[in-house]
Amino acid sequence: KITRGVKKMPSAGAAAPPPPPAIDELYMERDFYIGLALALSSSIFIGSSFIIKKIGLLRLSRVGSVRASAGGFGYLRDWIWWAGLICMGVGEAANFAAYAFAPASLVTPLGALSVIVAAVMASRFLKERLNLLGKLGCFLCIVGSTIIVIHSPKEGEVEDLNLLIDMLQDPTFITYVVLILSLALFIGCCIGPRYGHKHVAVYILLCSAIGSLTVMSCKALGLALRDTLSGKSNDFGMWLPYFLIIVTVVFVGIQVNYLNKALDIFNTSIVTPIYYVIFTTLVITASAILFKEWRHMRPEDIIGDLCGFFVVIVAVILLNAFREMDISLSDVKGIMRPKRELLSH
Amino acid sequence: KITRGVKKMPSAGAAAPPPPPAIDELYMERDFYIGLALALSSSIFIGSSFIIKKIGLLRLSRVGSVRASAGGFGYLRDWIWWAGLICMGVGEAANFAAYAFAPASLVTPLGALSVIVAAVMASRFLKERLNLLGKLGCFLCIVGSTIIVIHSPKEGEVEDLNLLIDMLQDPTFITYVVLILSLALFIGCCIGPRYGHKHVAVYILLCSAIGSLTVMSCKALGLALRDTLSGKSNDFGMWLPYFLIIVTVVFVGIQVNYLNKALDIFNTSIVTPIYYVIFTTLVITASAILFKEWRHMRPEDIIGDLCGFFVVIVAVILLNAFREMDISLSDVKGIMRPKRELLSH
Repeated sequence: KITRGVKKMPSAGAAAPPPPPAIDELYMERDFYIGLALALSSSIFIGSSFIIKKIGLLRLSRVGSVRASAGGFGYLRDWIWWAGLICMGVGEAANFAAYAFAPASLVTPLGALSVIVAAVMASRFLKERLNLLGKLGCFLCIVGSTIIVIHSPKEGEVEDLNLLIDMLQDPTFITYVVLILSLALFIGCCIGPRYGHKHVAVYILLCSAIGSLTVMSCKALGLALRDTLSGKSNDFGMWLPYFLIIVTVVFVGIQVNYLNKALDIFNTSIVTPIYYVIFTTLVITASAILFKEWRHMRPEDIIGDLCGFFVVIVAVILLNAFREMDISLSDVKGIMRPKRELLSH
Repeated sequence: KITRGVKKMPSAGAAAPPPPPAIDELYMERDFYIGLALALSSSIFIGSSFIIKKIGLLRLSRVGSVRASAGGFGYLRDWIWWAGLICMGVGEAANFAAYAFAPASLVTPLGALSVIVAAVMASRFLKERLNLLGKLGCFLCIVGSTIIVIHSPKEGEVEDLNLLIDMLQDPTFITYVVLILSLALFIGCCIGPRYGHKHVAVYILLCSAIGSLTVMSCKALGLALRDTLSGKSNDFGMWLPYFLIIVTVVFVGIQVNYLNKALDIFNTSIVTPIYYVIFTTLVITASAILFKEWRHMRPEDIIGDLCGFFVVIVAVILLNAFREMDISLSDVKGIMRPKRELLSH
């Protein structure tokens, strides 16, 4: 039987040692798994942090302090709340580091796992009910993430900052940046004030558009840090890293501001799935334009990657949009009874 | 950049022509796509046949004939009903042929697509409402099927009947057959009469267990027919094909009998998903034991195949188990409104 898709070993006739690219590839695969591990642990930390912070706030409100939403600062003296904040910080740091090792088209979609971690922990520790559709959503989210991991390009997109600087000057990418920035400006100045309070997607679109640029600058910054820390080259002798730090801080600020606006006006259970879908789509688009990952991917991996992403989208919708509905296994058990019994009821 | 997973071309130094197995592999891939096309068209025909037959029966009941369920035979004179039956026949024949070309672990899961075709056509031509979860289910079903197709082994499992005869004598497979037959006998004689009317899974389990053997014998029969028709060898000079025909007819009879029993006692919307899940799982198990497909598969293809199967399972559940529920986009649109509006309602 012939194996398919497996790399052919050098045949017995060719006694030459394997060519040097194989070692490079090995390093790249190692980087991929480091990035994957960072992305997964980041999801666990961020997901847990939501729950830990909520437990802290709930405990405070039971003790009788003024709740945070009413302007109280009692939570600052609570160690559980601090534990949550540190958990969040570790998670965000791991997420940032993950971008330096693995493709953005892998790290961003895996962010959905933090929603699952939060949902599962909430139903366990906060006794918040997770309905049947939520459970199916969790299951699908894990399945979809696995599919994304299988099909994600295993080699790094760019290995040093100088190469990235060349890539950043690509006319298509510059066009993308200009388009995104004008879109953000247009929404911020014209559409936002008029429709931001009526349609849930308005502020989220702004937030995601800027977010896709933040991810790219985080990735560049992570690469510079990685090169410098490993002693490969001192990228901080250049102006670029400082520019990237400023850009990242400004963009994160804009993102947090508009995400909070959206969360203030609309329900979390609709903001989360819409944000996930738009944000991840735009990050994948930006990453595809900048790194042209699909050029090195087999067609079935591109299709598989998209399919995995679609599965996670449905999962996030199931987990959030139907949260308020009262659907449990007992409802479905009803139709498992014989027809005659159903008629007599 | 290094491409991954793509078969390495013979390097420029080696001027030798590609080795002969490559041509075999080409034929195998061609067979795979023939089998895939047959499986897909089979789903379209079978799915349509349900709807055409139902349209015919509805028209007759409007004209005033005695309905089929009341013992009338008026439908036999109706051309629409006949068109449905022929459609079904063509679909089953295509399905049978598909097994001769492509792995059973590809053809059986794709059967879910006929459920979608039927659901979409029912909502279009019979004005049966498909709720939001049903639509998500249809989408997921297509995505999951795509994932299965991508990861399915592209080469045929067995190329002629003599090889298959050797495989059929494998002790593990004989153990499987004995286990399945005793399970079927045990359910048919002991469990069925006592619990068949109470639990939906009882008759379906019997039906699926026998079904997994039917698929294997259909596959062998299809192979024999294919060899004979292409003039490769005259398999019908042996006793095996005649034995396989008898086995197939008996098994199909048992399957139809017990499936009808299950459909008679329980609702179609719960029988369909449970039957799909148990039947497909057992076919994949039988196929894995008989053909040991996983031996030639990369680990990521095995994982991907399973993930695709899981996605389709969730899709079939969403499409069927929640059918009676009244969930539409307008329910979800509710949570897309600003919080303040929700409070004032």
